[in-house]
Amino acid sequence: MKQRSWWGWGYTEDAVTGVEREALTKRVAAILPGTDLTVHEPPSVESLGLPEPRVAMPDSLAGLVSTDPTDRAAHAHGQAFRDVVRNLLGQVLNPPDLVVRPRNEADIVDVLDWASRANVAVIPFGGGTSVVGGVEPRAAASRSGDFAGAISLDLGALDQVLEIDRTSRAARIQAGVFGPALEDQLRGADLSLRHFPQSFEFSTLGGWLATRAGGHFATLYTHIDDMVESMRVVTPSGISESRRLPGSGAGPSPDRMFLGSEGTLGIITEAWMRLQDRPRWRATASVHFDDYAAAVVATRAIAQSGLYPTNCRLLDPAEAFLNAGAATSGGVLVLGFESADHPTRPWMERALELVADHGGTLPEPPSYTESAQHRPGTGAADTWRSSFLRMPYQRDALAAQSMITETFETACTWDKFDNLKTTVTEAANEAIRSVGATGVVTCRFTHVYPDGPAPYFGIYAAGRWGSTLAQWDDIKAAVSEALSAAGGTITHHHAVGRDHRPWYDSQRPDPFAHALRAAKSALDPAGILNPGVLI
Amino acid sequence: MKQRSWWGWGYTEDAVTGVEREALTKRVAAILPGTDLTVHEPPSVESLGLPEPRVAMPDSLAGLVSTDPTDRAAHAHGQAFRDVVRNLLGQVLNPPDLVVRPRNEADIVDVLDWASRANVAVIPFGGGTSVVGGVEPRAAASRSGDFAGAISLDLGALDQVLEIDRTSRAARIQAGVFGPALEDQLRGADLSLRHFPQSFEFSTLGGWLATRAGGHFATLYTHIDDMVESMRVVTPSGISESRRLPGSGAGPSPDRMFLGSEGTLGIITEAWMRLQDRPRWRATASVHFDDYAAAVVATRAIAQSGLYPTNCRLLDPAEAFLNAGAATSGGVLVLGFESADHPTRPWMERALELVADHGGTLPEPPSYTESAQHRPGTGAADTWRSSFLRMPYQRDALAAQSMITETFETACTWDKFDNLKTTVTEAANEAIRSVGATGVVTCRFTHVYPDGPAPYFGIYAAGRWGSTLAQWDDIKAAVSEALSAAGGTITHHHAVGRDHRPWYDSQRPDPFAHALRAAKSALDPAGILNPGVLI
Repeated sequence: MKQRSWWGWGYTEDAVTGVEREALTKRVAAILPGTDLTVHEPPSVESLGLPEPRVAMPDSLAGLVSTDPTDRAAHAHGQAFRDVVRNLLGQVLNPPDLVVRPRNEADIVDVLDWASRANVAVIPFGGGTSVVGGVEPRAAASRSGDFAGAISLDLGALDQVLEIDRTSRAARIQAGVFGPALEDQLRGADLSLRHFPQSFEFSTLGGWLATRAGGHFATLYTHIDDMVESMRVVTPSGISESRRLPGSGAGPSPDRMFLGSEGTLGIITEAWMRLQDRPRWRATASVHFDDYAAAVVATRAIAQSGLYPTNCRLLDPAEAFLNAGAATSGGVLVLGFESADHPTRPWMERALELVADHGGTLPEPPSYTESAQHRPGTGAADTWRSSFLRMPYQRDALAAQSMITETFETACTWDKFDNLKTTVTEAANEAIRSVGATGVVTCRFTHVYPDGPAPYFGIYAAGRWGSTLAQWDDIKAAVSEALSAAGGTITHHHAVGRDHRPWYDSQRPDPFAHALRAAKSALDPAGILNPGVLI
Repeated sequence: MKQRSWWGWGYTEDAVTGVEREALTKRVAAILPGTDLTVHEPPSVESLGLPEPRVAMPDSLAGLVSTDPTDRAAHAHGQAFRDVVRNLLGQVLNPPDLVVRPRNEADIVDVLDWASRANVAVIPFGGGTSVVGGVEPRAAASRSGDFAGAISLDLGALDQVLEIDRTSRAARIQAGVFGPALEDQLRGADLSLRHFPQSFEFSTLGGWLATRAGGHFATLYTHIDDMVESMRVVTPSGISESRRLPGSGAGPSPDRMFLGSEGTLGIITEAWMRLQDRPRWRATASVHFDDYAAAVVATRAIAQSGLYPTNCRLLDPAEAFLNAGAATSGGVLVLGFESADHPTRPWMERALELVADHGGTLPEPPSYTESAQHRPGTGAADTWRSSFLRMPYQRDALAAQSMITETFETACTWDKFDNLKTTVTEAANEAIRSVGATGVVTCRFTHVYPDGPAPYFGIYAAGRWGSTLAQWDDIKAAVSEALSAAGGTITHHHAVGRDHRPWYDSQRPDPFAHALRAAKSALDPAGILNPGVLI
């Protein structure tokens, strides 16, 4: 049994060490020469000086409670760069008073009843991988704030697939289940949710639903929203359960109100989810470009072709070089098709015609594989995939070496993209300079739609130990302003949380804000659910 | 310039007469021998005895107002069978006091301001093709009711495509535009919304959005919801405008709250809509089955294959016989693929393998056409399409001949479908018997999802003149109970309106109802918008 890190990503045992650390350090030193890459170790939990809990739960619920300092420290933050840095600096300022682990839905009803009466803020916690301050008690933990206390409601015990409907390819699943355990329980029926965000190993179904997570599919089923048949949500005003339906036109969708509600309207306890057959045929290709503008047009042509690739990730030259080891002047388009029903060769062949029309070339022929044959290869696609899964661990390692390493993401219509990329990149570079750092900015598409891409930016800059938090906050504000001004959304799939509030508030139509606040008051009259998020 | 009928479908000039009437009468007489098919003519508007308007608008808005009796009679109802029958009987009991035609958004703001102050109900009216009582003032027109008056707000003057973004394939479109005028304005850019409900000619973009209309595509983009980039909505509390985005994860979707709000939360004035390239390649086939259960399994296999046909409409044997002229013991599956980018032969070929696995046969080979080549053919698919467009006119003709002819629709997961079809058909037949009628019940799929179909039922029964309304209401209640009990939705794409309220209210989760009422109060504090619908 591996140990979860209280301060950083994933398992303590999987942290970057030894040879990997050396190689990473060497790579950064090559790109950003002269950087001070001294490794700073995380503090001990004991040294954090967590304040005593302000509240205790009634005896009937006491068995659900943990006051263990490591537990509280691990539930005091998400997994953003700014969370990791503050942890490394020992600044765990907003721990929940209690970590509460309900065993079932009845426990959740009881906890919400108690919290509503006792004026205790309830912060729902799935895997805790929020990168937007979504699970950090912040204001609710303040001793001078509006609440008598704050608890982190950890749904981890609700981890079962309760029912599988093979005919309709759907399953009733508890919200607290983590990605791997979910897939394990579906494997016997030869089905898969096929929702694989970067956080897959350490995030939960309930977290994905509450935050409208983006997943595996680059087209069509881009958000978890699209895979929901029905949801069950415990609110302080009662339990909401929608009917299992493949589609409906009966009034505004109840599920769409809870999707993206980020724990402010209720606690999602289970959902019927649409599943996929496990793919048998796969086609993959890495297309190189000399010209990035042409690569964008090629990607748009595919997004508008009706071919619906599973993977359609355009890496810009910096991203392709840093994370896929490919030196190009125009970037790399990673294309993939998969199917459980038919070979996807005609799909890939047409896609390759489209990219060739715009100057795309193939250093290696496309790969067509069937089921068991599928083996990791050596192309840019595979290199990028392995790199993808190590990224959060490497981010932590670099954060401990004074690097500012973080991502941010958006979506915009195609007509706005060229300007958005230019102005956001300029704003990022200017902000990096103005905080006295040096660094690089990269961009890839995580998802593409017929009417626009979802660009995902990375920043790798050399900061000053002790200042990287403030440096990043300045950079983040600058790029958020730039992407909002350029017509992007403040988030395509990382959610709003507490960190995106200023830009979300200006993006959200005012009448909708009124309506949402009114809906919140109806469902959570005491206002205890995840205060500070969204509303 | 053709004349719109005040009492029935479409244009007066296109009503069923002469040879078509004779053929239709003969066909019905053959199926339901002994039926009294005397033709009853609609009354004159003068004979309706409409009450005088109770309210007048202020001088500044008086230019928008019509009190013409034919106009008021035409805005007093939708196009359900029960609307047409009541009109034929001269029972136009709920006319709006005024028909108001705003010229622009500013007019709408002014009208809502006035109506909120004057306690006048506002019923938004697009094309008036609601089949669920969505545009009928009903309670609001009552002299003893809660309102000082009721107006029908006809959006017909907001009929322009304002802006086209060819790169992102999207357009900003006013809500009052009718289907044909919308497509005409997009044709110059070689784009199309490709939303073709049966009501296409007489319904509007705003109506489609407010009711979550179902359209052309049998898979993927089944509802108009999926084609919305952003919306602009005038509420009594201000104008809500969402940002144009291809996708977003920033909180619950504002658009999804207004989609399906059926005029209760605000007046949709414009939307940025996602468009399609006009298809160049088409593949169509009509697959015959000996066994309906096998046909359902074949259709499910296609729905779960990832092939995403444009058309995938399984007609049961009765539907295939009555509306496509095909005599089969297991029904007909109408399959279609279309693309602007590539020939769809590989898609169709795989789909035909799948149907062959389940006993599907092809009386004619599939048709593969390119652009200008496309000509109406003679297969079941084409026969069904022509029939589809005449259906509403024929429904009116039959309603005037004492026939009970109406449709109802739902969606359910695949595991529930066999039972749903059996119990709903039994309930329909039992109800037809119990109201002393004789008739047939048909079923087709309008849309299919990986997790379930959207079945659409037709009823053709011989009623008694003067009683067909009450007879239908009994049948409708029986089938609505049956489909709800079997796990279906009360509507997949016909909306809730006033007629579906009892079943919608029991289907909708109570906490969501609280939230929706609270949202309504925030946006429409005077409660003037389409009272009686949804909430």
